[in-house]
Amino acid sequence: MIEQYGRFEARLGGPSGGNPFTDVELAAVFIHGHRHVRVRGFYDGRGEYAVRFMPDSPGEWTWRTTSNAKELDGRTGTFEVAPAAHHGPVQANRFGFAYADGAPYVPVGTTAYAWVHQPQEVRDRTIATLSAGPFTKIRMCVFPKHYTYNTNEPESFVFPGSLDRGFDHSRFDPAFFALFEAELDRLLELGIEADLILFHPYDRWGFQDLPADVEERYLRYVVARFASFRNVWWSMANEWDFMAKKTVQDFHRYFRIVQEEDPYAHLRSVHNGLLIYDHALPWVTHASVQRSDTDRCHEWRTQYGKPIVIDECCYEGNLAEGWGNITGQELMRRQWTAVISGGWPGAHSETLYNDRHEFWWSKGGDLTGESPARIAFLRRILEEAPLDRLEVVRPKWPPCHLAAGDYYRLHYYGLERPLWKQIELPAGAAYHIDVIDTWKMTVTTVPGTHTGRAQVELPGREFMAMRVRKAE
Amino acid sequence: MIEQYGRFEARLGGPSGGNPFTDVELAAVFIHGHRHVRVRGFYDGRGEYAVRFMPDSPGEWTWRTTSNAKELDGRTGTFEVAPAAHHGPVQANRFGFAYADGAPYVPVGTTAYAWVHQPQEVRDRTIATLSAGPFTKIRMCVFPKHYTYNTNEPESFVFPGSLDRGFDHSRFDPAFFALFEAELDRLLELGIEADLILFHPYDRWGFQDLPADVEERYLRYVVARFASFRNVWWSMANEWDFMAKKTVQDFHRYFRIVQEEDPYAHLRSVHNGLLIYDHALPWVTHASVQRSDTDRCHEWRTQYGKPIVIDECCYEGNLAEGWGNITGQELMRRQWTAVISGGWPGAHSETLYNDRHEFWWSKGGDLTGESPARIAFLRRILEEAPLDRLEVVRPKWPPCHLAAGDYYRLHYYGLERPLWKQIELPAGAAYHIDVIDTWKMTVTTVPGTHTGRAQVELPGREFMAMRVRKAE
Repeated sequence: MIEQYGRFEARLGGPSGGNPFTDVELAAVFIHGHRHVRVRGFYDGRGEYAVRFMPDSPGEWTWRTTSNAKELDGRTGTFEVAPAAHHGPVQANRFGFAYADGAPYVPVGTTAYAWVHQPQEVRDRTIATLSAGPFTKIRMCVFPKHYTYNTNEPESFVFPGSLDRGFDHSRFDPAFFALFEAELDRLLELGIEADLILFHPYDRWGFQDLPADVEERYLRYVVARFASFRNVWWSMANEWDFMAKKTVQDFHRYFRIVQEEDPYAHLRSVHNGLLIYDHALPWVTHASVQRSDTDRCHEWRTQYGKPIVIDECCYEGNLAEGWGNITGQELMRRQWTAVISGGWPGAHSETLYNDRHEFWWSKGGDLTGESPARIAFLRRILEEAPLDRLEVVRPKWPPCHLAAGDYYRLHYYGLERPLWKQIELPAGAAYHIDVIDTWKMTVTTVPGTHTGRAQVELPGREFMAMRVRKAE
Repeated sequence: MIEQYGRFEARLGGPSGGNPFTDVELAAVFIHGHRHVRVRGFYDGRGEYAVRFMPDSPGEWTWRTTSNAKELDGRTGTFEVAPAAHHGPVQANRFGFAYADGAPYVPVGTTAYAWVHQPQEVRDRTIATLSAGPFTKIRMCVFPKHYTYNTNEPESFVFPGSLDRGFDHSRFDPAFFALFEAELDRLLELGIEADLILFHPYDRWGFQDLPADVEERYLRYVVARFASFRNVWWSMANEWDFMAKKTVQDFHRYFRIVQEEDPYAHLRSVHNGLLIYDHALPWVTHASVQRSDTDRCHEWRTQYGKPIVIDECCYEGNLAEGWGNITGQELMRRQWTAVISGGWPGAHSETLYNDRHEFWWSKGGDLTGESPARIAFLRRILEEAPLDRLEVVRPKWPPCHLAAGDYYRLHYYGLERPLWKQIELPAGAAYHIDVIDTWKMTVTTVPGTHTGRAQVELPGREFMAMRVRKAE
């Protein structure tokens, strides 16, 4: 029995001569009551074809293939779908996110660009680290990564071939995809969304500069294989504006192809280097932003009208490079600042020096920094908030704070280190006040309840927050 | 004998009946060779008038008065001026400042808005603190200040009167001015420039909302009295945009009056709250900026074409107010960031809580914070730099650095905490490299000389800088 939002797969024998990747067209229609959903199938090597499907409704589904290969055409089947025992896939929900069943999803993200392109032993450690950590999302590349500290050759690639022999862009390597999919499934088991980076400029293999027809075939193949994974997000590129030979129209085109091919409308965005893409465009579901001035999330909200995820704001580390050497404190300050101005904390990664040159940011492996524990704490605070009703309040004087009607408020003081703060509470109601140390990870409730003007003592340290909750 | 750029004063008996402040016009022309300089005189009470003059050239000067009062008209005299034993007044010099003799002036500023309006005992401590400190400039108000933590009534005012009885705007109080001038002289002895704030919005006496004719008389009187103090700068207002009943045209008008009245062209600017004045206007000599994003000084340089002084970027303190509770480290990071992007560090002040509510920022007194020692260190680094040839280099990737040809360079790493940095030095020349800890205040010269690509070890801490000097 297939679970709702689980993955159905029909495996079909078919032609293996010529180039099945380009010669053979295969699709299937999945039918449930009045609904017909068309998905593309794909060639998986050795004369095997597959059609995958993620049913969004319980009950009976039937399917029927169409193909230009006679033996693949008109194949049919029926399967039963059981109601989900989980929340379903994540979708954008105004300025935030929610699972399909309406439960709020809090994007607490990390980045390990090339973790799937590392040896099994490193991948296993990555999964172990993720299973112990606070993250609900990871940014990761489909193509391998060529960049400082990351020059090892992966075992397999999207295309068959190698750097020495060249790559056959007319075919794909099913072994690579099987490996990649196994890792997607391990993330799914951990409840972690896979923010898949489809293109990027860190390249010595020519993958950032493919012809348009190859790019299109690649995108169709990737979506045909991955879209039925409930936890997949599509990021058209990392630092799209650093791909020197591509224009903004190329990225529009990637969005169009992915949107056409993905029947489930997984989340779609594109991540900037210096120039933020126009996330107001209709095919973008949320903004994936690289910026260090994360207090501007409320502006971007207004500009784009969509959820803002800060996916990079420099990493906890001590490398020479300016993007990779801030403290955990500063990373957390930027993430809290993002949250308090209406964004989401997707920006963790780690570049703390070790002699193996195995940095989480690129290869995965182990985390040794100070920020993950504080990210877990931030996640807890967010999960305790009435996320579906949370608004950004922009007072005449910055900073912003978050509020839900007259019954919840969250202030964050960042680099301020006041000995006290006055807050104005609605008269005629009683409130609990929590003093939160976001670095020491403590929540201290001020004794009693409060109303009207309240003066709250603070410890005169940085990184404090204050939470107000209406008493029942 | 009067010293060059010293202060000559002729005191003249004249009419004391009626209202000499409004009835009597007095001016004098000071003549040296072919030069004729006209200055306005002023009534000093008790039938005494004065004409003050700051001669800019050694040698013989003669003077002659004009007045609508017969006994003050046609008075003459002669005096001899000796060459200056000091550098003279400060003027803008492209993006920096220089004394009249060409020696560079480094604006290292602090703010104690209402220190002159405090009792003698507090003023004496202020002067003692300044004499021990690193500051070369202080921002201070002419009118008293009404603001949180600063509600004590001063002993005297610009105008005769009191809050209870009201003020006579048609007269001035010579006792107040004598007191103020004595403090200007004490600053002068310490080599400290007095950045005089002529208007401001922190007011319970109505001084932020005077009629235009009173404002004009006030400005003419102030300039007549103070312009001959070599160390005076004119700041039209503090947080000009918070003076709700004044328009930008009012501030243009203040500039015009001050420029007309001041024969020495002392430095002129105006300090913003949220909205920066258009410092590109021709009557502005330098930009007096309040901003926390001090890495933008290079933009403002380009925009205004003048020196940029960061005069406020939040204070070292622990008050409830967001402008008054950052750490000394953060204040210094903002000041270093200003310097490295082409601005000047005028932004010190202190709001560390004490039960007396005597905060340096407002009342002066004592300094107890961590930043003054680091400001002294920054001043030393600046004074060791080839200031007259220093350019801001804006690389493709921030941050900026400072450079003077191929023989000097200054990098600042701020919140970065790299374990090393690579720098590219011109081949064929040898360089000394200094690793600077701007917080611990150490300069450590890397052994040997360096050329070409050099990799420099750093301690993996924040607030580091690197200085490169060409070996002789």
